[in-house]
Amino acid sequence: MMKTINVKINSCTYPIYIGRGVLHQIPKIFKQLKISGNLLVVSQKKILALHGARLRSILKKSGVNLSIHIVPDGEQAKSEKELFRLYEAMLRARLDRSSHVLAFGGGVVGDLVGYAASTFKRGVGLIHVPTTLLAQVDSAIGGKTAINLNAGKNLVGTFYHPRVIISDIEILKTLPRKVISDALAEVVKYGMMSGPALLGWLEKNIHRALEKNIGILEEIVLESARIKVRVVEADPYELYGYRDILNYGHTFGHAFEAVAGYRRLTHGQAVACGMVAAGDLARRLGISNSSLSDRQLALIRSSELPTSLKGFGFKPKNIARYFLVDKKVRGGKVKFVLPQRIGSLLVVKGISPSLIEETLKQLV
Amino acid sequence: MMKTINVKINSCTYPIYIGRGVLHQIPKIFKQLKISGNLLVVSQKKILALHGARLRSILKKSGVNLSIHIVPDGEQAKSEKELFRLYEAMLRARLDRSSHVLAFGGGVVGDLVGYAASTFKRGVGLIHVPTTLLAQVDSAIGGKTAINLNAGKNLVGTFYHPRVIISDIEILKTLPRKVISDALAEVVKYGMMSGPALLGWLEKNIHRALEKNIGILEEIVLESARIKVRVVEADPYELYGYRDILNYGHTFGHAFEAVAGYRRLTHGQAVACGMVAAGDLARRLGISNSSLSDRQLALIRSSELPTSLKGFGFKPKNIARYFLVDKKVRGGKVKFVLPQRIGSLLVVKGISPSLIEETLKQLV
Repeated sequence: MMKTINVKINSCTYPIYIGRGVLHQIPKIFKQLKISGNLLVVSQKKILALHGARLRSILKKSGVNLSIHIVPDGEQAKSEKELFRLYEAMLRARLDRSSHVLAFGGGVVGDLVGYAASTFKRGVGLIHVPTTLLAQVDSAIGGKTAINLNAGKNLVGTFYHPRVIISDIEILKTLPRKVISDALAEVVKYGMMSGPALLGWLEKNIHRALEKNIGILEEIVLESARIKVRVVEADPYELYGYRDILNYGHTFGHAFEAVAGYRRLTHGQAVACGMVAAGDLARRLGISNSSLSDRQLALIRSSELPTSLKGFGFKPKNIARYFLVDKKVRGGKVKFVLPQRIGSLLVVKGISPSLIEETLKQLV
Repeated sequence: MMKTINVKINSCTYPIYIGRGVLHQIPKIFKQLKISGNLLVVSQKKILALHGARLRSILKKSGVNLSIHIVPDGEQAKSEKELFRLYEAMLRARLDRSSHVLAFGGGVVGDLVGYAASTFKRGVGLIHVPTTLLAQVDSAIGGKTAINLNAGKNLVGTFYHPRVIISDIEILKTLPRKVISDALAEVVKYGMMSGPALLGWLEKNIHRALEKNIGILEEIVLESARIKVRVVEADPYELYGYRDILNYGHTFGHAFEAVAGYRRLTHGQAVACGMVAAGDLARRLGISNSSLSDRQLALIRSSELPTSLKGFGFKPKNIARYFLVDKKVRGGKVKFVLPQRIGSLLVVKGISPSLIEETLKQLV
């Protein structure tokens, strides 16, 4: 069964298709959306080794004129060099504004391809086929594209919405347990954002996602996508602050990733610890109580994610330094998203540095 | 006297201020638009030598925290290398999404800075202070930004609208006569688009623009901006084809520039010959008559622009080849904008290649 979420961005609408085996619906989807002509698939070797043959045969049935471009693994794919290598592939594939580029991969592929699609000839059609749980629940949704500069991650980017997102749950079966676990940090975030119903369901079922229970994974992708879409629709270009709550766990998390040199902590691990820190800070400010922090802590543990940064040798002062270079900082003021209760997150500015340091001391 | 044109793009509005000495209104304009904080001015050595001291002293009065970045002359400024050098300057100037970058120069500076502004941290504020007639009448208006790839000009870009455009007519007094002449190609285009009133006025006055008559230049900038704004407002993201008519003279013109290796012909010279070619082709198709072509020819001559490409040794076949790589081609069909009568341009597709070749043979 294929589920559809329609995303309304101003006067445009695009669908997200979620389900087991939706990859095989591509010929029908392309026909309906009038996607034809030159199509460039961008992916990575590992993904193509697992799913490339199947995707290729499905795309052949769709009647598009297919080219394939391979980018390296990891953040390296989001470099200046890889961006301009991708532009060259787009030229060779003879893409014009009526053509499409298809991002077949996780967040890194989606970010790079989305950025290139938004800028090549001032915009060609973009199709997301996310292959990781993280991309299906988070990064493919919301229109954010990015590449990295030497000075930092995602410092260059655009807002650019795809024609369609196709999230096949079957593909998730090939993911390692650790990669599923990592994505669950964002799922816990949605639980905290959404309310007691989803959080309670996650408390009962999140461990079964790690065992790659397809029904549970499908439910998680569907609910997560619905929550993110609702927030993105309210503020598609991040102008009004409505998207701030999506940053829950991320202000701390980005600083943790940075201080760990983007190697010693994964994004999910950093965000998990970021949510723990936010819970701790909320408690110190009297915004919430320890029972909320405890429930969150337990859910993070069920996701097999860390709840502390002890043993890394991080110094609170070094972490705090990174808050100021976060690209969401406007006019020098750091915003923190803090939990008030399940389903209610607050955006708080101007918190005293000494309180933040106490939270960091507790964590490292 | 400062004239204002308000540009409405969907739900946003920004002003274009046009007049003698409007540069001195910057402190007032910034206050009104709440522009403050870190500001990076991007310009070129020659422009700063002429107008830098004045701009700097005016900006100091505006209370912004000023940094300056210099880019090289010519299309070289729109290279990958210069783009990433500009991103580094934006990092050093500590720009965040509430900061602004100010493009102080002609089309090249505006294109590069607009592109960088639209992509750095997913968009910082953009201010255009165009210093050439071409930029004031055309390139600063309409939200198109671009950089070049090795394979061609403007192949990467975005649509991104500025907070404000400030067009000081006084600055045009330092332009060489040939540079004014070059910009008049676009002005002739607006005359052909607009109707008998503007065309008649131009026939009487365009030669006085070459003598840098300030009143005439002001009138030209004002009328041109009004016409372009009207078209851009109808189709800000070039989705519906309404902007096609702005391409009058440009389908031929881009091919002429390309075949001339972007060195032997300026943009204005190429567009002038492009309009002559469009007039000739319209006549061959029976869309218009020779009296229209003759009026256009005379106006181009008054602007001191060429009306023929004889002597360059171009071959019609080599020119025609470039139509197919133009980035506005969708699905392989070349669109030509042809004059029906003064004030009425038609977009025509599927013209027989042999007819186009006859027009090209006539011209080269």
